[in-house]
This record gives sequence, C-alpha cells and structure tokens, in this order.
Amino acid sequence: MELELIRELAQPSTLPNGGKIVLAVMDGLGGLPIEPGGPTELEAAHTPNLDQLAREGALGLSTPIAPGISPGSGPGHLGLFGYDPLRYEIGRGVLEALGIDFPLQANDLAARGNFCTVDEQGRIVDRRAGRIPSEVGARLCERLQKETAIPGYEIFVRPVKEYRFALIVRGPGLADGLSETDPQRTGVPPLPIQPLRDDPDTVRTAALLNDWLAQARRVLANEYPANSLNLRGLAKDPGIPKFPDIYKLKAAAIAVYPMYRGVARLCGMEVLPTGETMASELDTLERYWDQYDFFFIHFKYTDSRGEDGDFTAKVKVIEEIDGYMSRIRALRPSVLIVTGDHSTPALLRSHSWHPVPLLVWGPTVRPDECVTFGERSCMRGGLGHLLAKEIMPLAMAHAGRLAKFGA
Amino acid sequence: MELELIRELAQPSTLPNGGKIVLAVMDGLGGLPIEPGGPTELEAAHTPNLDQLAREGALGLSTPIAPGISPGSGPGHLGLFGYDPLRYEIGRGVLEALGIDFPLQANDLAARGNFCTVDEQGRIVDRRAGRIPSEVGARLCERLQKETAIPGYEIFVRPVKEYRFALIVRGPGLADGLSETDPQRTGVPPLPIQPLRDDPDTVRTAALLNDWLAQARRVLANEYPANSLNLRGLAKDPGIPKFPDIYKLKAAAIAVYPMYRGVARLCGMEVLPTGETMASELDTLERYWDQYDFFFIHFKYTDSRGEDGDFTAKVKVIEEIDGYMSRIRALRPSVLIVTGDHSTPALLRSHSWHPVPLLVWGPTVRPDECVTFGERSCMRGGLGHLLAKEIMPLAMAHAGRLAKFGA
Repeated sequence: MELELIRELAQPSTLPNGGKIVLAVMDGLGGLPIEPGGPTELEAAHTPNLDQLAREGALGLSTPIAPGISPGSGPGHLGLFGYDPLRYEIGRGVLEALGIDFPLQANDLAARGNFCTVDEQGRIVDRRAGRIPSEVGARLCERLQKETAIPGYEIFVRPVKEYRFALIVRGPGLADGLSETDPQRTGVPPLPIQPLRDDPDTVRTAALLNDWLAQARRVLANEYPANSLNLRGLAKDPGIPKFPDIYKLKAAAIAVYPMYRGVARLCGMEVLPTGETMASELDTLERYWDQYDFFFIHFKYTDSRGEDGDFTAKVKVIEEIDGYMSRIRALRPSVLIVTGDHSTPALLRSHSWHPVPLLVWGPTVRPDECVTFGERSCMRGGLGHLLAKEIMPLAMAHAGRLAKFGA
Repeated sequence: MELELIRELAQPSTLPNGGKIVLAVMDGLGGLPIEPGGPTELEAAHTPNLDQLAREGALGLSTPIAPGISPGSGPGHLGLFGYDPLRYEIGRGVLEALGIDFPLQANDLAARGNFCTVDEQGRIVDRRAGRIPSEVGARLCERLQKETAIPGYEIFVRPVKEYRFALIVRGPGLADGLSETDPQRTGVPPLPIQPLRDDPDTVRTAALLNDWLAQARRVLANEYPANSLNLRGLAKDPGIPKFPDIYKLKAAAIAVYPMYRGVARLCGMEVLPTGETMASELDTLERYWDQYDFFFIHFKYTDSRGEDGDFTAKVKVIEEIDGYMSRIRALRPSVLIVTGDHSTPALLRSHSWHPVPLLVWGPTVRPDECVTFGERSCMRGGLGHLLAKEIMPLAMAHAGRLAKFGA
C-alpha cells in the first residue's frame, strides 16, 4: 500500500545535480558496549569522515522489522530497499541459490540440500554426513547432475559448502507449498515431501521431487558417509515488485558476497561486477557512477567481525569504511545514506534486534545537533526512530524524486 | 499479525541465567507538574534505585493505546502484555466480575448491575438507589441469588460495592450482542434488553435476561430505595490468545487488587496468592521466583494517590516502590521493565493520555545517556517513543527468547 503511494509519486529528479542516491550498508553495523559503561563499536571507532557527514546531515535510529525482532539478511535488506519484510518473505531455498550467484528465474523452485548419512535401515545417523569436505560435496553434486533427471524439467544441482548444496528445478507449473524431508533428528529415516496445499500443481510438484529423491538416493547408495540427502526450505521467488519500477530509478548493486547480490537482483537491481575487497567496490562505484541513479553498496565485514565476537576487528572495519566516505562524497551524490541492515554486536556474536544507526546526508537534509556518528548520538538524532522501510521514501524525497501528494 | 509473528519466533531463553523477565507496573505512573515549572511526581521523588537502573539500562516513553487516548485499566494492561488493546476489548461486565475475583469461565455472560429507585409508574427516580450501603447491596444480592433463576442455567449474583453488583450467567449458547437497560437518565423506566444481532442465540439470551429482570424486580418491589435494577455492559470473555502460549513463558501475576489479577487470569497467567501490601507482593515474588519465567507485579497506589489529586502522597508511593527495586535486582532477572499502564497526574485526578515513563534494564540493553528516571529524561531516552504493545517483544528479545526472523 505504502509502496503503491511511492510508486505513484516517484518522478525524475528535480535537482540540478541529477538526484543520485547512494545507499551504503555496513552489514550488522549496530553494536553494544563490550563492557558496561564503555562505547559501542561505532562509538569506539575513529571516524572523521562519518562524523563530518553527521555534522552536516541528520541522524536517526532504524528498526529493521519491528521492536524486538532480529532480522536475517534477507528481510534486513528488503526493509532497506523500502519493502515490508513481513510481506515479502524470501525462502531458505531461494537464499541458498542466491548465495551461490545462481541466476534464479521467476518460476524456478529452489531448495537447500544437505547430504547426510543413513544406516542399513535408511535411518539418519548423521544429518551432516560427517561434514564432508567441499570437494567431496562438489563431486557428489556433479554425479547427481549427470545421473538424475526430472522428465520435462531442467534441474541444477550446485554445491554450496561441505555437505550443503542447492537444487533448482525449472519448468512449468512448479508450486512451493511443500514440506521438508529433514526430520531434524537422527534415528529416523528422511520424510517424504508432502504437499501443504491440495491444488494439482502442489501435489504434482511433491510427486516429482519425491521421485527425484528416490533417484538421488540410489545414486548415493554406494557413497559414504554421504549416502543420502535431505531437501529443506523449498521456495520460489516471492514476486517482489521491482525496485526500478517503483522508484523510477536506474539501480545498481555492488556487493562482494553473492547473497546480497542475489537479494538485489531479486528486487530488480542490476548487479555490477566487482572484486573481493571493499576498495574494489569503491572502484566499481566510481567506474559506473554516470550510468545509474541509485547505488546500493554493501560492506560485509562489520557483520563478520561482529559474528566473530571481535569488537576490535569490527572497529577497524568501520574505520576502513570511514576512509571510503571521502571517495563517495567526491562523486557528489544528492543523497548519501549510511546505515546497516541490522545490528551485530560483538558482545552477542549474532544478529540482534537493536535499532541501527542511520545517517542521511545531502543538501536538502535538515541538520540536527549531532556531531558524531554513533548509537547514542543517533538516539537523539533529528530523524528520530523510524522503520527501515521508511528510509527509501526519505532518500527519494531528498533526491527531488517524489512529487507532492494531493493538491 | 504481529502477535502471530512473536508466537512463531518465541523460543526458550538462550541466556545462561535463564532469561527471566519482570514486568513491574506502577499503575498510573506518568504525571504532570502540579505547578508550572515544577517537577512531575516521578521527577520529584527521591529514587536512587530507579536512577541507577536508568543509568545502566535505557529509557523511553510508552503510549498505551494511541496519542491522545486515555486508557482504562483493562486496555492499559492488555497493551503492556503485548496485545493490541483496540482489537481485544474486555467488556464492562467482564471487568466487574474480574474485579470481585469471580472465577469467570470461557462462555459465561457477565453484566454490571446497578440497583436503582423507581416510582409507582416504574420510572427511574435515582439511578444509584441513594447509594445504599454495601451491606444492603450484599443482602439484596443474596435475595436475588435465592429467589430468582434462569431454568437450565446457573446464575451468580455477587455484590461489588454500594448499589453495584455483578450478574454472571453460565450455560449453553449465551450470546453477548445485547443492549443495556439503563436509560442513563431519570423520569423514564428501565429499557428492555434488545438483541443487537438477529441470530437465534442472541435473541434467546435477550429473552432469558428480560425474564430474569422481571423476576428480580418482583423480588425488589417491597425494598426501598433499591426497588429495581439495571444491567449494563453485558459481555463475555473476549477470547484473548493465552500469554503463555504466545510467549512460551510460564507466567505469574502478583497484584493486590482483584481486577488486575482478573485481567492477568483472562490472559492465561497464573495468579499468585499475596497480601494486601506492596511489601507482601515482593515476598510473593521472592517465594515463587524459581517457579516462573515471567512475573507481572502490579503496584496500585500510584494510581490511587493520583486519582485523589494528592501529589505528595503519589511521590511517597513512588519512593516506597523505589526501595523494592533492590529486592527485585537481587533476584537477578535477565530483563526488568518498570513502567505504568497509563498516566494518572495528580493535577488531573484521573487517568490521562500522556505517554508513560518506561525503563528497560538488563545485560543486553543498549545504554543511553539518561541518568535519572523521570518524564523529561524518558522523552530523550534511547528506546524512543513506542507503543505499550511493543514492550513485550522487546523484553522477549532482551531475554534471549526470540529467534531470528528469516535467513
């Protein structure tokens, strides 16, 4: 509904400098003091460039989904792109396919696959097949790709890591209301896939996959320890309205990790080629600057170091990203947003529910009294506390890209 | 919808100390300066323990229902328990039954009754029967209990106070879409109960009650001044989803006043036996600490002194409660919430719409810059301004009791 309003009001920029928007996402940016009374990661970091942006722009706190909810990366980014993450859910199978850069098409059915070990009676004895090396997993995927088939459909069996793989099925009339085969415990055999709805497509899709599972298990029977497999999170592209259509923006995504490229592609952004480092992402931004109106640039390692529980390393990543801010400013965007998709405090070693620092900078931003970029500064920032999905409409407005509502 | 999300994500605590939550409610906590330029009740109170919690935790302002709305105690508490108070309405009759600790069952129909005085033509001359003493009201209830009946149903006629009583009807097929008999003015006779829907159950329930009213008026005819009666707010348990099911918490309520025990019971909490004083409520909390995951502890007298218009007395109650905070801390909860169900400024002598001070304390809380617990401090607290129903999801997250949403 809100998205429909934005779609109606979206217009080409009225600003003289073209109204380019940069959404810079430091994954898992928000933090916590590692010891009582201390600073958070962002507060501890020396960030002269971000602080200058804070002085000139405005700060706030962004709630990714709702108070108390810790988001996964999928819903975290959907919120930042302006979608209601509770409305558009990206299934686990789809995320797995996106995570290996698989070019998923609109009606593909995707599943996360796990190799496992079963005993002579077919009962699972190890749900992860002894965490086989990735090379073994890759070889098994090759065998399944060659030695199994679903008549009338294309299948893709792609290794992910160790015992994990992705199965993608392409063809007519595939449905995604399907149960998983993993019983989530050992001592029992894998479950058959059950249709969760009784329409003909769902029933037929379940039958096709059960047949494929039987073939796959025959192929694996003489392997060990990966002599069987499970399928989980069977899902299709949730049909997210396309970002460029809603916002009337030529939109590009720059990300090192496949999953973020995948989510951006699912939303209709173009994914730009880039290297493995954050510096190379900046090179990409500069190289393609003239060709797009909107850039989503994703910095992964704030989250990684938070998940490691390494406060000091997360601080260092933030300081490195701070250094890139001058390169972004030099491009003269109309609006620069710096935020995260969620918090990942080193203290908790995981995604958390804490609201995320938000910085909005640009010539039409109403400045507040904040002079540094940090959690406590953001708490009293001029943008207040808002939902992540409200950031894109703000960015659009600041870029002169939203028409007046009503006469 | 949001409650469904919480229900899906709720999990046993991942925290090493067990993830216990204490929700300490100071009824009517929020206040106003009694004279321009002065402090509010909470600001005037000497609260070293609450201030220490404020320094270590985070503050905010809680809006019970929506801006401008002054809640009754029912909706005020439903919000604090995480329900949308606009969705689940507890009827007046149900509240009256809860207020006398009546063990209401799921399909009971409850009404608030008022004795009144009528003239020879049956026209109401005093809607409160001269505010008869409670002993007289109790005797009349005993008569009605003995001398009236609804064949096939159980009835309970229970005194409340002075001219007020509660009528509870128990049996098959009772409906609650019924009009009231009180015309809200004198000079006219009581109205008959009308079915507000035309389904058979509602029509039949109205007929049963009109028959009972005729019996009751015959019994009262020789009494004076309470020679007739009215029924108001006929209602059933609104079928609130059970708190322990939603949050997967073993939940207990500690309250001196029956109505708060009743609302908690209606939500599925277990009501613990306690004495008449706040100190005895703390004794109860300590005694049952090991047996529950969640404690709602209700402090009534902040509201009572606010309703009295007694600023100084409300300050003293707050100071007494402040003293109990060290006993709560000593129990080492994972999350301690201190707030109110609404504001009751002594200046206004009534419930008000002003947002309520909110304090959230625990090891995973992101601290803000506030150092005292008071309205002005809460206005710039790190939790921002939120709705009362958002507090429980936050508490759950801080207790390690909410799984991540999405992958």
